[in-house]
Amino acid sequence: MSRFFSSKYKNLVPYTPGEQPKDTQYVKLNTNESPFPPSQKAIEYASDAAKKLHLYSDPECRELVKIASDNFGVDKDEILFTNGSDEILNFAFMAFCDSAHPAAFPDITYGFYSVFADLNGVPYEKIPLNEDFSVNVEDYIGINKTIFLANPNAPTGIALSVADIERIVSSNPDNVVIIDEAYVDFGAESVIPLIHKYNNLIVTQTFSKSRSLAGGRLGFGIACKELIADMNTVKYSTNPYNVNSMTMATGVGTLLDDEYTKENCLRIAENRQWTTEKLAEIGFSFTESKANFIFVKHEKADGKEIYLKLKEKGVLVRHFDSARLCAYNRITIGSREQMQIFINTLKEVLEEIL
Amino acid sequence: MSRFFSSKYKNLVPYTPGEQPKDTQYVKLNTNESPFPPSQKAIEYASDAAKKLHLYSDPECRELVKIASDNFGVDKDEILFTNGSDEILNFAFMAFCDSAHPAAFPDITYGFYSVFADLNGVPYEKIPLNEDFSVNVEDYIGINKTIFLANPNAPTGIALSVADIERIVSSNPDNVVIIDEAYVDFGAESVIPLIHKYNNLIVTQTFSKSRSLAGGRLGFGIACKELIADMNTVKYSTNPYNVNSMTMATGVGTLLDDEYTKENCLRIAENRQWTTEKLAEIGFSFTESKANFIFVKHEKADGKEIYLKLKEKGVLVRHFDSARLCAYNRITIGSREQMQIFINTLKEVLEEIL
Repeated sequence: MSRFFSSKYKNLVPYTPGEQPKDTQYVKLNTNESPFPPSQKAIEYASDAAKKLHLYSDPECRELVKIASDNFGVDKDEILFTNGSDEILNFAFMAFCDSAHPAAFPDITYGFYSVFADLNGVPYEKIPLNEDFSVNVEDYIGINKTIFLANPNAPTGIALSVADIERIVSSNPDNVVIIDEAYVDFGAESVIPLIHKYNNLIVTQTFSKSRSLAGGRLGFGIACKELIADMNTVKYSTNPYNVNSMTMATGVGTLLDDEYTKENCLRIAENRQWTTEKLAEIGFSFTESKANFIFVKHEKADGKEIYLKLKEKGVLVRHFDSARLCAYNRITIGSREQMQIFINTLKEVLEEIL
Repeated sequence: MSRFFSSKYKNLVPYTPGEQPKDTQYVKLNTNESPFPPSQKAIEYASDAAKKLHLYSDPECRELVKIASDNFGVDKDEILFTNGSDEILNFAFMAFCDSAHPAAFPDITYGFYSVFADLNGVPYEKIPLNEDFSVNVEDYIGINKTIFLANPNAPTGIALSVADIERIVSSNPDNVVIIDEAYVDFGAESVIPLIHKYNNLIVTQTFSKSRSLAGGRLGFGIACKELIADMNTVKYSTNPYNVNSMTMATGVGTLLDDEYTKENCLRIAENRQWTTEKLAEIGFSFTESKANFIFVKHEKADGKEIYLKLKEKGVLVRHFDSARLCAYNRITIGSREQMQIFINTLKEVLEEIL
């Protein structure tokens, strides 16, 4: 830290992204990327957009907003695109949290929520998950805090029902509730339709997972137009041209090719089913995941040891060091071929450990 | 504004980007875009990167940092890439300004500085330019504030010398000085070499202007490694994957094709010279611009009227409504063909007005 760094950040601990090693060819099951390439339309549109990069991107993302609003059944002023969904989550922390509006989220969830809160000097409460890692809905009823819930949750993959989310939203009418649906397309149900009923609900999604655009950085928020307008005030005071032309074009191409996304999600769900069956056979248990990852522990083998030995053998999964999570590993669901390699390698690892 | 919007932003007035009309084909000389397409290498690299977008971008931008550090003569830990240079400017406001470290910048300069200050709750002083729009260097000597200077300045195009900037940096050793070199490649001199001598200097640049990538969104900061590390703390607490893979690839392609950039800058400087000569012939005066725009006023015709009539006739320039600027228009220097159309149209406008 330099002597110039503002004291407000002196205790700030940044988010740690999943490992992105460049040196070895890993079977990479650690950052919840899609095993499927982007839609061909996305690739073509991006290449076209690249030729016109000397002109600024459209700060209003009009073409993308038009197609997306049709696709998600909302009005054009009910959607806002950002540089990945991390940016819209930060906008929500900036716009709707402060000392009078503290944040609340589960103790085990996307690790960035507490970083955003610290960055923005927002007080927050971490609400413990149940012993089985499920959200206790009662803990969020009428708590008068700005609530952030990942649905499905990470790293557990467990989803809440629309009815449960509606209870939380309706019981906190004086606070905004943000439902982070980064992983919703793999088997959970979106609450986007509820934005027409509640003016305190923001739904965020990303193109990184189900839409195969992690490297393109495209996220968005959907909410009533007043909340979108507030987040636009933040956007135009931060980075008006936050979405570049190529990414915007990949978004358009991807939404025009929605069947491809849906097929890929089905294949991931099938591979998730296949993988959990194989894991059960060799002594693993897991949460009921609706996401493109599973959260697994072995009855006898240590989670960290499994992670390290898998890495040695060229298979990268994500391990978390905290007390409640260290028995587990989070495994991204890849292609069937990748999952076959994972299972084979895991069997070798277990033979060595046990 | 919704009733949920944090009171800290209740007076926030966002930045207004230049008009980006989609309805009519304008000769667009209002947002300082390059008239030249991106380097062919940039286009090719982007198209390749688009095929692998299902994988996350490299949060450390390693390939780009390697080539850029060679190109700019700095170490790899002395450079940080961002989603346009607006993002690195905001990072600097976040990291190095607070109530104990107020900001200072000219009263007439890039309009975003005061927005960033307001966004971050940073007190600031706007230091008046001289009557001729030049910076009075003495005003910045030993002022103990975090100083932001665009060099060349906008919308005037007037540049400071390296010696003058060095006096400002060396006289404020307990504060960071940020030199925003968005337009430096068109005729001013960069102070990047000074980062090896001063640990309180940050130089920011962009790929939007000289490098023909406005729509790609790529900016960067160069400074001693301690200042870069602080801004990385902010980045990893805000948006670790802030630069997408395609933009990173266009950056690499562009830097590998540096001759193309240099040639384009020379052509802009020639067109600037040509345009100012033509303007002088028809009664315009202007500041001495080292940028890819000129700042001009007519001895008899009103600035706003010229702007509006040009727009009617399909030529878009930028007009500012404030008292000291309203006699002027800022004209982006485009291709020779565009500038010929501009001059011809301007002559028609003057005939109507005068």
